[in-house]
Amino acid sequence: MAMTFLEKYNERVDKVNSLLCVGLDADFSQIPARFQKLEHPQFTFNKWVIEQTHQHVSAYKPNSAFYEARGENGWQDLSLTVQYLRENHPEIAIILDAKRADIGNTNQGYVGAFFDQLGVDAVTLHPYLGQQALQPFLDRVDKGLIILCKTSNPNSGEFQDLETTAGKKLWQIIATQVAEKWNINNNCLLVVGATYPEEIKEVRKLVGEMTLLVPGIGAQGGEVKDTVQAGLNSDQKGLIINSARGIIFAENPSLEAQKLRDEINLYRK
Amino acid sequence: MAMTFLEKYNERVDKVNSLLCVGLDADFSQIPARFQKLEHPQFTFNKWVIEQTHQHVSAYKPNSAFYEARGENGWQDLSLTVQYLRENHPEIAIILDAKRADIGNTNQGYVGAFFDQLGVDAVTLHPYLGQQALQPFLDRVDKGLIILCKTSNPNSGEFQDLETTAGKKLWQIIATQVAEKWNINNNCLLVVGATYPEEIKEVRKLVGEMTLLVPGIGAQGGEVKDTVQAGLNSDQKGLIINSARGIIFAENPSLEAQKLRDEINLYRK
Repeated sequence: MAMTFLEKYNERVDKVNSLLCVGLDADFSQIPARFQKLEHPQFTFNKWVIEQTHQHVSAYKPNSAFYEARGENGWQDLSLTVQYLRENHPEIAIILDAKRADIGNTNQGYVGAFFDQLGVDAVTLHPYLGQQALQPFLDRVDKGLIILCKTSNPNSGEFQDLETTAGKKLWQIIATQVAEKWNINNNCLLVVGATYPEEIKEVRKLVGEMTLLVPGIGAQGGEVKDTVQAGLNSDQKGLIINSARGIIFAENPSLEAQKLRDEINLYRK
Repeated sequence: MAMTFLEKYNERVDKVNSLLCVGLDADFSQIPARFQKLEHPQFTFNKWVIEQTHQHVSAYKPNSAFYEARGENGWQDLSLTVQYLRENHPEIAIILDAKRADIGNTNQGYVGAFFDQLGVDAVTLHPYLGQQALQPFLDRVDKGLIILCKTSNPNSGEFQDLETTAGKKLWQIIATQVAEKWNINNNCLLVVGATYPEEIKEVRKLVGEMTLLVPGIGAQGGEVKDTVQAGLNSDQKGLIINSARGIIFAENPSLEAQKLRDEINLYRK
C-alpha cells in the first residue's frame, strides 16, 4: 500500500532535515515578465522555483485562487505543476490550499478533482459545515485534510475568537473536535497562523502530536523562533512551515529556502 | 450603470412572479446517458434544463464542485453555461455556489475568476476568516456576496449552534455581523437552510429586509410552506428558494419548476 500523506511528509522531513513548505502562489501579475509571456507562465515559473528550492523542501503548497484567476489556462498550469512534482520529486508532499467545504456528497466532486484527477496529497478545508458534511474528505485515509483553525490574517478573531459558554473560544473547540472526533483515520491536520504564536502553543497542548500547517511566516509578520518553539511536537516535528512570497519572488529562491530551513532548524533541539 | 445583483434578481421576481432558483448541479454520474456521451455533457444538459424551466425561474445556481470534478472540461462546461445564460436569458441572476473564502488579496484571484472572467452575479462564501479577509469580495458593489449562516445539512450545528457568552449562537452572531457591519454596500445575503425553518424565522428578525438564499427544499427535506412563511420580508420577497435534484433530474423539469413556483406563491399573500 502507498504511503499516507503524513508518512510521506515525515519521511521527507527526516531525509532533508526540513520542516519547510514553499507556497507556490504564482500570482500572474507578480511573476517575472520573462515568464508572463510564455504559453504556460505559472507552470514554467513554478518549475523554475521547484528546481531552485527542492533540496531544502518537504512540501509544496499551491493556492488554487491564483490559478483559478486564469480560468481553464490557470487550472492547466496547476495541473502541469502537480504532474511535474509527482514525476520529478515524488518524495515531496503536495498540499492544495483550496479552502473548500460543501455539504455531503457535493464534496465528492472536490475529492475526485483534487485527489484522483489532480493527484495532490492534502487539501485545506473550512470547518464551518461540520464533520458529517466533510465525511467524503475524512474517509480518504491516504490523504491529508487540513482544517482551518486559527488563521493568519489580521482580525481572524472576528468569529474564531468568540468565547463560548463551554469556556473555550471557537478555534479551541474546533481544535479539540478535530483531534478527538474527526481524526479517526489519523489524517487530520490544523491550520494555525504564525502570526499567532500563543495560539500555536495552545493548539499544541490541545491536540497532542497532530501536525500543524503554519502559514504567515515572513511577509505576513510571523517569527520563525516563536513559531517553532510553540509548535513542535515531541518528535521535534509536527509542523509544516509555509513561506511563499519571501521565497518564490526572491532574487535567489534557493538561498532563501535554505536560509529559512536552517533558521527553523536552529530551534529544533 | 448596470444593475446590481439584487436589483436584477428583484426585477425578475416581479416580472415572472417567482422566488424560484434552480440549482444547476449537473453531476456527471446522474445526468441522463444521452447527455453523458456528448462533447459538452454538463453544458448541453444545463441548456436543456434552462430551456425547460426559464420562464418560471428568477435565478440559476450552479455548484462549482460538480464542474471541478471534471477538471478543465468541467470548468469549460460551467463557463459555457454561464455564457449561454448571459446571452439568452440576461434577466435571470446567476449565483455560483462555490463556498470560497481565503485571506485578503488571495481572494482577488477568485473575484477576478468568478465575476470578471466567468461573469456570474453572485457567489457563496464561508464566514470563518472574517470581514477584513473578505473585503475584496465585499468591495464589489455590483455583485451579491452570499455568506453561509445556518446551512441545510444534518448536524450543521456542530459549530454553527455553539452558544457564545454573548447569549447568542454562532450563526446568530454571523447573521448580525453581516447585517450590521459587512453590508455597507447593500450587497450581502445569507444562506439559511430550508431544513431549519425556526432559524429562518430568527434570521429574518435579526437582519431586517436582507435577502436569504434558502437551499434544502425537496430532496433534503425542507418544506415550502414553513420556509416561505418564515422567511419573506415586508415586500413579500427577500427569499431565493433553491431546488436542484427535484427539478433538474425530474422527468419533466418544466412542470416541476412551475409547480414549485406556484406552491411558493401560495404562501405569499
